[in-house]
Amino acid sequence: MLEPQSYVAGAWVPPDTAAREVLSPVTGAPMGRAGSAPPDPAHLLAHAHAAGAALRGMGFHDRARLLKALAQYLDARKDTLYALNPHTGATRKDGAFDIDGGIGTLFVFASKGRREMPDGDVYLDGGIEALSRGGSFLGQHIAVPKRGVAVQINAFNFPVWGMLEKLAPAILAGVPAIVKPATQTAFLTEACVRLIVESGLLPEGAVQLIVGSPGGLISALGPQDTVSFTGSAQTALTLRSMPELVASGAVFIAEQDSLNAAILGPDAAPGSAEFGLFISEAAREITTKAGQKCTAIRRMIVPEHHTGAVIEALSAKLAPLIPGDPAAEATRLGALVSPAQRADVVAQCGRLAGEAREVFRGDSGGFGEETGFLPPTLLHCADPDGARDVHRIEAFGPVATVMGYRDTSHAAELANRGGGSLVTSLFSADPAVARLITLESAAWHGRIYINNAESAREATGHGAPLPHMIHGGPGRAGGGEELGGVRGVLHYMQRTAVQGPPGMLTAITGQWVPGSAEDVKEPHPFRLHFEDIAIGHTLRTPAREVTLADIEQFAEFTGDTFYAHMDEAAAAANPFFPGRVAHGYLLLSFAAGLFVQPDPGPVLANTGLNALRFEQPVSPGDRLWVRLTAKRKTRRTEEYGEVAWHATLYNQGDARVAEYELLTMVAHAA
Amino acid sequence: MLEPQSYVAGAWVPPDTAAREVLSPVTGAPMGRAGSAPPDPAHLLAHAHAAGAALRGMGFHDRARLLKALAQYLDARKDTLYALNPHTGATRKDGAFDIDGGIGTLFVFASKGRREMPDGDVYLDGGIEALSRGGSFLGQHIAVPKRGVAVQINAFNFPVWGMLEKLAPAILAGVPAIVKPATQTAFLTEACVRLIVESGLLPEGAVQLIVGSPGGLISALGPQDTVSFTGSAQTALTLRSMPELVASGAVFIAEQDSLNAAILGPDAAPGSAEFGLFISEAAREITTKAGQKCTAIRRMIVPEHHTGAVIEALSAKLAPLIPGDPAAEATRLGALVSPAQRADVVAQCGRLAGEAREVFRGDSGGFGEETGFLPPTLLHCADPDGARDVHRIEAFGPVATVMGYRDTSHAAELANRGGGSLVTSLFSADPAVARLITLESAAWHGRIYINNAESAREATGHGAPLPHMIHGGPGRAGGGEELGGVRGVLHYMQRTAVQGPPGMLTAITGQWVPGSAEDVKEPHPFRLHFEDIAIGHTLRTPAREVTLADIEQFAEFTGDTFYAHMDEAAAAANPFFPGRVAHGYLLLSFAAGLFVQPDPGPVLANTGLNALRFEQPVSPGDRLWVRLTAKRKTRRTEEYGEVAWHATLYNQGDARVAEYELLTMVAHAA
Repeated sequence: MLEPQSYVAGAWVPPDTAAREVLSPVTGAPMGRAGSAPPDPAHLLAHAHAAGAALRGMGFHDRARLLKALAQYLDARKDTLYALNPHTGATRKDGAFDIDGGIGTLFVFASKGRREMPDGDVYLDGGIEALSRGGSFLGQHIAVPKRGVAVQINAFNFPVWGMLEKLAPAILAGVPAIVKPATQTAFLTEACVRLIVESGLLPEGAVQLIVGSPGGLISALGPQDTVSFTGSAQTALTLRSMPELVASGAVFIAEQDSLNAAILGPDAAPGSAEFGLFISEAAREITTKAGQKCTAIRRMIVPEHHTGAVIEALSAKLAPLIPGDPAAEATRLGALVSPAQRADVVAQCGRLAGEAREVFRGDSGGFGEETGFLPPTLLHCADPDGARDVHRIEAFGPVATVMGYRDTSHAAELANRGGGSLVTSLFSADPAVARLITLESAAWHGRIYINNAESAREATGHGAPLPHMIHGGPGRAGGGEELGGVRGVLHYMQRTAVQGPPGMLTAITGQWVPGSAEDVKEPHPFRLHFEDIAIGHTLRTPAREVTLADIEQFAEFTGDTFYAHMDEAAAAANPFFPGRVAHGYLLLSFAAGLFVQPDPGPVLANTGLNALRFEQPVSPGDRLWVRLTAKRKTRRTEEYGEVAWHATLYNQGDARVAEYELLTMVAHAA
Repeated sequence: MLEPQSYVAGAWVPPDTAAREVLSPVTGAPMGRAGSAPPDPAHLLAHAHAAGAALRGMGFHDRARLLKALAQYLDARKDTLYALNPHTGATRKDGAFDIDGGIGTLFVFASKGRREMPDGDVYLDGGIEALSRGGSFLGQHIAVPKRGVAVQINAFNFPVWGMLEKLAPAILAGVPAIVKPATQTAFLTEACVRLIVESGLLPEGAVQLIVGSPGGLISALGPQDTVSFTGSAQTALTLRSMPELVASGAVFIAEQDSLNAAILGPDAAPGSAEFGLFISEAAREITTKAGQKCTAIRRMIVPEHHTGAVIEALSAKLAPLIPGDPAAEATRLGALVSPAQRADVVAQCGRLAGEAREVFRGDSGGFGEETGFLPPTLLHCADPDGARDVHRIEAFGPVATVMGYRDTSHAAELANRGGGSLVTSLFSADPAVARLITLESAAWHGRIYINNAESAREATGHGAPLPHMIHGGPGRAGGGEELGGVRGVLHYMQRTAVQGPPGMLTAITGQWVPGSAEDVKEPHPFRLHFEDIAIGHTLRTPAREVTLADIEQFAEFTGDTFYAHMDEAAAAANPFFPGRVAHGYLLLSFAAGLFVQPDPGPVLANTGLNALRFEQPVSPGDRLWVRLTAKRKTRRTEEYGEVAWHATLYNQGDARVAEYELLTMVAHAA
């Protein structure tokens, strides 16, 4: 018997009299029970708040390292999860999307946290805003963790990934989570939470789990809390209409029903690579997880004159996919999550029958309605313009509808008739079609997926949300946004506009802001190890004259004999130059000569530079000097870290000649 | 008599029997009437949708140019608006925040649109996501205009700015607006809309105006629409609870009540510059617009032992500010917007009296309760920890409460007690205080404003929302975000994740994506004028050997004798280098030598470069070549535009040595 427990305020709570029976999707017989009396919201929240303080005590990179360690911990123990997976109705391959997909999401957030967020506790959203002429008053948008909890309500179809794809960004942001999985598959979520708790990696309270009813939790939330819901539009509407939630100031987002579409391009005739890709992906989307993916293709929008060919090819592709025991190696089509879910899909198909005719139904495998098994079914809608239900009723199983379009705009229009979806895909080799479809329909879809012969080998699949890209969609899809790398992390943070003098912004962000105090001191900052470099440590170099001979020598040496460097009259006729001027790269090279330290030392390499702007030309006879200030430090490896320097080149009149951010790798002290 | 008209579907609609009487804030006597039978929502929306299509037919830069032209048009005619301004109760100086502030906001969005958004119709949100090893399948987040309308409901206090600060980002995004101002001051908004319509600059239907009740408009909205509300928390709650709106998928944001705070730093003792600044700004915030600013300081959080000094100094500063005729040149304190608003503030003061004692009340100027005039009032709350009302009741007039704090954390805690605010300010010279206050309270405030002696001359003021910085705040402040440059524009756009092969992303975004087809052809692209350069036009240069002599000559010439270039053994001991390697700037310089065209031609200047990364060292004997591809074009002036080139440096094995984006200015054809 599967008896998943809640994890509340550090204690495991077994099912009690509030539990409900859970039926096997394979046999229809009882296989467990789940649920207990709702936990006290105050208890849950207080425990989470303590964990929130602990999480906020770390920086983004520290939390990213935790996520990586957690991913490794789960990866080493995922057999536990795979052992439970067939009880969800899912095949091993289906389970990989859930289990390996979830662990992979942790890895990506761990990596993005360290590559794209600062090694500190304040995230910078955009750059400095110049709010004053003299530069004594500046603006900077920052983001800091919300001081509340992330309530994460998940659907039955991805008990592991569904939790981890929300948990990863919340933890990276510094916000504790309270997870409420769907009761039917809570046993698998519970097994994963158990591993997380056992790992001891996260601060206690960073994850709590509610199996069964959340009781009054939603009504107890406040303006620092978030609710991220995945499930049906109906439940989402009930939640977002709750007066206490509306009045609370908590942020509510939903990822709900979606009538995702796949468009076969007008260029993709039968026999083309794109036609083949379309058929393969459609068959896969219809049958993976027995069609229980929120991103699965529900509507196939194909050139009117290819409708028959599409139905024929797809039917042939689906015919061999016969439902079978999800635990068996050879099974390629598992069961819906429960007998009840099967009944629901059958009922939705009945509602679609008024607008779409069944054109294919697969072998049932001999399973009856007491189980969760259902064969793939293909419908054809002959009048998609007049139809309403095919664009709004989501039969959440192995069911999809084919419909024809007249021209590319009509295809986009039909895709948009879904009223907002998670993803629409296009199979086409024609860039003009991709541009038109995107411009006419991007506003209606959270994701647009384009595949053709060029990308076929590496394309990640219509239905696979990636941690790098946002997942969610407008309108019927719920209006929420998850994932998308740092975008998903910011969902758990507050963006705040900070205005003040440069030194204050430096103190707050931990990154040196131009105009802040420069600490000009010995030794040369390139003589210091990573940990000894203080933000603001500044070098001002001596000046070096740039002569006409220098310019000529550089031109001769590099081959860069652009007229602005070589010909006084032609240079003077250029709107940017007073006459012959030094090459920009000559200035950069001389600057390096002025600030470099020749002997071996802690600075290992110059790895690049950012945002170089030449602000004023340098004429022969001008004298160049450099100010170099330690701007930002980022730990990278055991051996070295990255130090970014604010570099400004000046002339003899202290006018700015060029400015850039210089990137170096600097060794740690031995 | 002031009789503002609605502007619906291209027609002006005068007040009718649905109108209500509008009383003068100066005399209390009737001065006009406003309102008419609610317009038909279908009529409004259809008209707006036609304008939406016209707006989407332009690019961001085209719309930015429209905004600039509109700002210039209004600026030349603003006397019309200033003439009406005193009827709102506002002095000329108050009116400048509204009228010049609104026009200035248009200018800033016009400028940001051209500097920070692409010269095209697809906005890029972040960079390319590498979703595949081989690079044949990539991700890019884009944003496109929502295909709906922006319903903008504004408060009475800023009839011009309140409209323009929402209109500017909507138009820049490409979305038409339906503006519903507060009825009391709708006459001033109407005058501004009349100028906009007369200008003929925007497509007809891009702005419609509803004076009076919007009728069923809100209930008629759908998932592509937005509602941006500014006003009371109560009205916001009513709107966001409307079942039709909740179910519609329309995005609703609010900017509502806010118990903004100003914190006097623990270092800012009486006599310090910061103490003086605090007193000046507080007095200004209390009296500007007679305290009717949503960002005004309502709570002054000061060191406990300086409470008396603060009250004394502030009372002295407020005493000379006596209410008077807003039309008179010398008046420094105008009237509240109406006698009703005055009564409301008096009632709120009564509710605060239980927790805060009145410690100063200014001269009434002899005006009675039949008018909108009210003298400045200062309260003192002795027990801010025990108090509730001072942290939640917003007396929307010239009223503020002083309260003492024990230490810096306590100050942050009291600021956060407002439950979410638009702005909290800090007057301090201590960076550690700024960092602590920010980390402990940023999650509760949309904006943190820091002022001290360093920034005093240029600081823009606690209460002034700037178009560059977001305006809004969590919790009690409504949870909305407006302004903030491009951030505010994105509010009217849909973010969509696009995944596909590189060539498709190039077609969609109009910017060349690595991996897309390279069009290698004659002539050299630097020989082409701006309009003749095609995205994707590529130059592949011949290779040039980098010799040891080159490296030594470069070191000698520039003075950059870093050991990695000069000493074989030391270089080999460095984790990044196989032995002596070429200088990164030598490579850049040689690259320029390889691709430059020496004679005068369309390319005028290299203005900078972005995101340079050295990816692989170059050893003596390696052969360097460059691929240069036209990536992005941006019109700049009548004479020239900016062309960004994707530059990649390769060695003889075609391994990538360095990559960057090169910026050039290129002349238009004569």
